[in-house]
Amino acid sequence: MLRTQLCAEVGVEHIQKKVELCGWCNNYRDHGGVVFIDLRDKSGLVQLVCDPSSPAYEQASLVRHEDVLVIEGVVRPRGEGLENPKLKTGKIEVVLESLRLENKSLTPPIAIGDPSVNEDLRLQYRFLDLRAPRAYEIFRMRSKVAKAVRDCLDRLDFLEIETPMLSKTTPEGARDFLIPSRVHDGAFFALPQSPQLFKQILMVAGMDRYYQIAKCFRDEDLRADRQPEFTQIDVEMSFCTQEDVIGVAETLLKEVFANVGIEVKPPFKRLDYHEAMETYGSDKPDLRFGLPLVEVGDLFLDSSNEIFKTIASDPKTNRFKALKVPGGDGLLTRKDLGQAEEFVRQFGAKGLAYIQIKPEGAKGPLVKFMPPHSLQTLLDRLQAKNGDIIFFGAGEKKIVLDYMGRLRLKLGGDLNLIDLDAFNLLWVVDFPMFERNEGKLSAAHHPFSLPKDIDNPNPEEVQSVAYDIVLNGVELGGGSMRIHKEEIQKKVFEILGIGAQEAQEKFGFLLDALRYGAPPHGGFAIGFDRLIMLLAKVPSIRDVIAFPKTQKATCLLSQAPSPASEEQLRELHIRLRNPKKT
Amino acid sequence: MLRTQLCAEVGVEHIQKKVELCGWCNNYRDHGGVVFIDLRDKSGLVQLVCDPSSPAYEQASLVRHEDVLVIEGVVRPRGEGLENPKLKTGKIEVVLESLRLENKSLTPPIAIGDPSVNEDLRLQYRFLDLRAPRAYEIFRMRSKVAKAVRDCLDRLDFLEIETPMLSKTTPEGARDFLIPSRVHDGAFFALPQSPQLFKQILMVAGMDRYYQIAKCFRDEDLRADRQPEFTQIDVEMSFCTQEDVIGVAETLLKEVFANVGIEVKPPFKRLDYHEAMETYGSDKPDLRFGLPLVEVGDLFLDSSNEIFKTIASDPKTNRFKALKVPGGDGLLTRKDLGQAEEFVRQFGAKGLAYIQIKPEGAKGPLVKFMPPHSLQTLLDRLQAKNGDIIFFGAGEKKIVLDYMGRLRLKLGGDLNLIDLDAFNLLWVVDFPMFERNEGKLSAAHHPFSLPKDIDNPNPEEVQSVAYDIVLNGVELGGGSMRIHKEEIQKKVFEILGIGAQEAQEKFGFLLDALRYGAPPHGGFAIGFDRLIMLLAKVPSIRDVIAFPKTQKATCLLSQAPSPASEEQLRELHIRLRNPKKT
Repeated sequence: MLRTQLCAEVGVEHIQKKVELCGWCNNYRDHGGVVFIDLRDKSGLVQLVCDPSSPAYEQASLVRHEDVLVIEGVVRPRGEGLENPKLKTGKIEVVLESLRLENKSLTPPIAIGDPSVNEDLRLQYRFLDLRAPRAYEIFRMRSKVAKAVRDCLDRLDFLEIETPMLSKTTPEGARDFLIPSRVHDGAFFALPQSPQLFKQILMVAGMDRYYQIAKCFRDEDLRADRQPEFTQIDVEMSFCTQEDVIGVAETLLKEVFANVGIEVKPPFKRLDYHEAMETYGSDKPDLRFGLPLVEVGDLFLDSSNEIFKTIASDPKTNRFKALKVPGGDGLLTRKDLGQAEEFVRQFGAKGLAYIQIKPEGAKGPLVKFMPPHSLQTLLDRLQAKNGDIIFFGAGEKKIVLDYMGRLRLKLGGDLNLIDLDAFNLLWVVDFPMFERNEGKLSAAHHPFSLPKDIDNPNPEEVQSVAYDIVLNGVELGGGSMRIHKEEIQKKVFEILGIGAQEAQEKFGFLLDALRYGAPPHGGFAIGFDRLIMLLAKVPSIRDVIAFPKTQKATCLLSQAPSPASEEQLRELHIRLRNPKKT
Repeated sequence: MLRTQLCAEVGVEHIQKKVELCGWCNNYRDHGGVVFIDLRDKSGLVQLVCDPSSPAYEQASLVRHEDVLVIEGVVRPRGEGLENPKLKTGKIEVVLESLRLENKSLTPPIAIGDPSVNEDLRLQYRFLDLRAPRAYEIFRMRSKVAKAVRDCLDRLDFLEIETPMLSKTTPEGARDFLIPSRVHDGAFFALPQSPQLFKQILMVAGMDRYYQIAKCFRDEDLRADRQPEFTQIDVEMSFCTQEDVIGVAETLLKEVFANVGIEVKPPFKRLDYHEAMETYGSDKPDLRFGLPLVEVGDLFLDSSNEIFKTIASDPKTNRFKALKVPGGDGLLTRKDLGQAEEFVRQFGAKGLAYIQIKPEGAKGPLVKFMPPHSLQTLLDRLQAKNGDIIFFGAGEKKIVLDYMGRLRLKLGGDLNLIDLDAFNLLWVVDFPMFERNEGKLSAAHHPFSLPKDIDNPNPEEVQSVAYDIVLNGVELGGGSMRIHKEEIQKKVFEILGIGAQEAQEKFGFLLDALRYGAPPHGGFAIGFDRLIMLLAKVPSIRDVIAFPKTQKATCLLSQAPSPASEEQLRELHIRLRNPKKT
């Protein structure tokens, strides 16, 4: 190697010793003719010093930001009072004996490590952007966490098996990336949205325990925490129950968190889907703080307000939820209350009623519609105290749960109720198997999850053996036990309105596999990018991906995507619809 | 779990104990009313036995091949003389107490584990094919080797960093798989042929040591050991020399081989490219046996044969190679000699002269064209003994080296000179930087390899700091030190006839990166599928890939590639050239 050690590995133990170092000029300055250079590599910084008597002086004085240096020097203690306690190498400096300007750099167009730099410019000059010590830390963590995942799953006798990238349209329901086939005119491969079908096939194939840290692809419009290609920890096992799968996931997460110095203790808390929705208005509740939703519809059955009464009288369709903010009356200004109402209106609320608990009693627009005994029952049920505020959401179930859940999150944030150092892991279990959107039934997870009672005449009541893992209110991953019997899979497709022919076309190879002795099996997947984002506490998924795409699905570094040649298109048997545009 | 242990984990220590097992019916038979079932899981087989008095009898008698069973039973020793020493569990059997026919199987269309089954059928029913114990072994090995790679590189402070799959056309020169962009009308992503440019960018970004077990893609016609998607161990490091990179590769290979129980001892033997070509007629010589090529052109300068004389007189253009087969006269029949000549003719030889060393002296068509003193020198140079045969190849250098190298391999195989248990690792170093094909210069490795003397006026004499690792005559991988200075990269492009504009379009981001302080760096890549194929000693790369494509680039399991819908094509701004064909 061109170095005897890394920059930050030089310490007081090397005083009077000769070292050879390599790295980039992080900074340089001239103090009274003496040149100081902070040399940087992945380990950190070390100060080089060179006075005019040194043979390296001429070269040293030419050094500018981001030049690549290969140096020799002798370590000495810094002068009295010149130590830098912020720096690992702050007690020493290296007196230059020779300096080779290995490669000059143009003046960097971005300040390295400055988060205020325009992100597009950072992504264009990603090779400079990633030189920030924080970036190295993040990718080191990512690598170490991936290693911890593999160490754990390998120990638990899972095999890492690669599934194809040149794959077939998968049924996750998002848009596929397609790849025209050169050999087969008119045919296309699809990049996998997940290895779902292949991992199930591996179970049918007797591989027993499979995992992969797998690249997945979805051609969807990008949000802040989405990328067209992303990575997931993908696990599947045979001859097991839900408890076994959850057990593996908990062991895995415990070891991953321990790897970055965080202790989490299995078994993690569990909520069933129904409870999560009713109490937190979310299937991925953030349990780092309270503010549960409480159903109070029964107390409005005899309300003098006809609308409230009507809502309350149909508890199957509607919800009437109260959310108590302890001490909220003192914390929330009139303006805050107005903003809260504006906020929920965005999500379909017609308004946001509230009651303030004053020394003189409950106050607020809702009070007058409640008979005193109902009001008292309400306060008792919520254990409301002087100074509290109670918000109310009433109306169609789905809408109310949604906006009250969002209000809860907003209040938790606004009122600083959230312990930002906490890592709260939660299982949400017993998801519904189907959901109805605009009249049409679809699979809530995917159509391969095992239903608990497929013969229930109301599909919307059918639960699946499916579970999500939630970290601080973010869905980290999830999974399910899968259908391993052909007749159940067929029933599910029937309920979904997928005809036999369509099923055979799309998932024929899975159906075939189920006919030849599929074992009971289940698994889970965890979003790896998102996991690293949460562990590293960075705001964007782009911070944990070496070469991310922008929200316009462009790589600013390589300028991908880019035009193809006419010859390439001809070989692939395709042409452009709008050839002038290229 | 639905089992207390795996099938092959049941042993004499469990006698009289109750076990719960799961698996597939590998075989069943009825001996005088007693049902025997061989239950199989990934660990192996165990024998179940059930007589008519058992409550499980009715179910047991229904069991057929590949049915999925969940059983309970009590372990007992097999009867006197009924032990099966070939089976790990051959001393015991499990007396059934209950049997659940968890999932019936249709009659399997292939015999599992039978290599004589048509491969297309095996690939179509891959979920059955992979149930063969040997398949589990191979994928277990593959997983363990990947783990060993990561353990090693992680310990050596390499970070695993993922590079994009949605990438830009890469310069390896093979055909790209293209992915039409939905967001950018007329633009395409390309699947990476290798992470080459991105890994170099990571070095410029200060990541210092990178690795990845990376998926790579080439849309080329497939040969027996090629797949459109394949996996490589990809490594890059900074501030190093060739010796450091080779050192890392040797450590890595040593640990990988140790992981599968094979000892290999670094430093591995090295040959320079020139010597490999001259002595073995190959840049990936198989050194498990001898039969070196020896230049003897000087001995034909005074030949009475004008053609030989002419060939010999231009040693720059031509070669005159002798290959001695010790004892060959007794080993090779007249027919063999005829076949050898036929063989080399396929590769451009005009014929294959030979000399047989008989007790009465050298014999053969060539003898009469050599003056006696030349013949004697030849025999001395080759240390030829009675009973040997010497083959000769003469003519244009490239052609002679090629067919004589192939003849050497053929003879090594035919004469059983190759130790099939040996793992012979070899570095071939000092590759030429450029090669000329049909008059046009191209990069022998790739245009980013560091040339040793770029200013040599004859580009064909320029060597690069490039190295291949060869295992038993198969190119396992290779690498190079890379160009880290922009001006050298520009010169290389110039020599290759790549203009400034084309270079900027294709590799602009690399050229940009070289301008902003690129460190000295180099690396290597090892074909992972091929490595596993060689370690597992299987004949086809398809045996080490869970879901391989056929040579027609089809997945027979999923029937990919498949047609896309008109709506999908419209969204991607493309149309088919031959719409009727779909």
